[in-house]
Amino acid sequence: MELLERRILSEGEVLPGNVIKVGSFLNHQIDVSLLLEMGKEVNRLFAGAGVTKILTVEASGIAIATAFATVMGVPVLFAKKHGTSNLSGDMLSAKTHSYTHNTDYNMVVERKYLSKDDRILLVDDFLANGQALNSLIDIVALSGAQLVGCAIAVEKGFQHGGDSLRGRGIRVESLAIIDSIDGGTIKFRR
Amino acid sequence: MELLERRILSEGEVLPGNVIKVGSFLNHQIDVSLLLEMGKEVNRLFAGAGVTKILTVEASGIAIATAFATVMGVPVLFAKKHGTSNLSGDMLSAKTHSYTHNTDYNMVVERKYLSKDDRILLVDDFLANGQALNSLIDIVALSGAQLVGCAIAVEKGFQHGGDSLRGRGIRVESLAIIDSIDGGTIKFRR
Repeated sequence: MELLERRILSEGEVLPGNVIKVGSFLNHQIDVSLLLEMGKEVNRLFAGAGVTKILTVEASGIAIATAFATVMGVPVLFAKKHGTSNLSGDMLSAKTHSYTHNTDYNMVVERKYLSKDDRILLVDDFLANGQALNSLIDIVALSGAQLVGCAIAVEKGFQHGGDSLRGRGIRVESLAIIDSIDGGTIKFRR
Repeated sequence: MELLERRILSEGEVLPGNVIKVGSFLNHQIDVSLLLEMGKEVNRLFAGAGVTKILTVEASGIAIATAFATVMGVPVLFAKKHGTSNLSGDMLSAKTHSYTHNTDYNMVVERKYLSKDDRILLVDDFLANGQALNSLIDIVALSGAQLVGCAIAVEKGFQHGGDSLRGRGIRVESLAIIDSIDGGTIKFRR
């Protein structure tokens, strides 16, 4: 999506360890008007797919999921990264690893919010190794709901999480795919 | 706001420790259409206040802030609860305490996203003791930006964080104020 790619090129910063910082518009400060445009594109891509609910994971996926849900007219469910005192009842959980925080954690969702009749679109800001997305896929499988696909803002193509999911037959639509950051220069997949 | 109060009465659950669970529509599963209606009410309340940016804190404030920002046409900035590898540069931080997780943490925001010209509306899902909101207020003060006020979904009036802020001359608009939960019965402030 050209609008997003232009924004990444003009405001994105490459940090050591192939971290791409897009905190000015995507995951710290949030340009909601950009997110709504991205939502329109995702709505177009998944038109006719019968999405009933968007599933994401806290924290930086929530803003994007909320904007996409605004355009698509469906509710959002976000997985939490640890049990809290305001979660109760029957939980679906999947273990995952965060490279950003270098820690393992459980991703949890209350079972009652995912039913066999749901058609789930997974949403996240970044797709790199695919750890978070794989855990969300596990949760959808545990629930018995149908996985429609994944809508990602920025995929780091050189970390191959997205290609691995596509190889398993899962539909992954990334609005920008970065294939290399050689010498700090961002190159997008065509 | 009657729409929100009705929803709390029909779907809210009271858990031990005066925890009010609204995970079916506000902070786990999210009814985006309700959030947009709440955003219209906040936009009406703060009309003419010249809000330039919404500040919230991860995670459950983000969806509400994004919906409010959609209606108000301003960007969102969300404070993070700990440093991560994709935060860099000059930070504003404030220590806070989470009663939900029973832990202390630092709330951090990159300084460059708050300027002296900004007029900030603080947004959160819950206001109880006011710990999180007080830390956001500290961050706004450190930045030199102007605090316009606070827009809260659900205030627990019996924990007095909101009244304490109002006593300091800070404008706090809560869309639902729960004054008591005696024997599991929720009573709203009139």
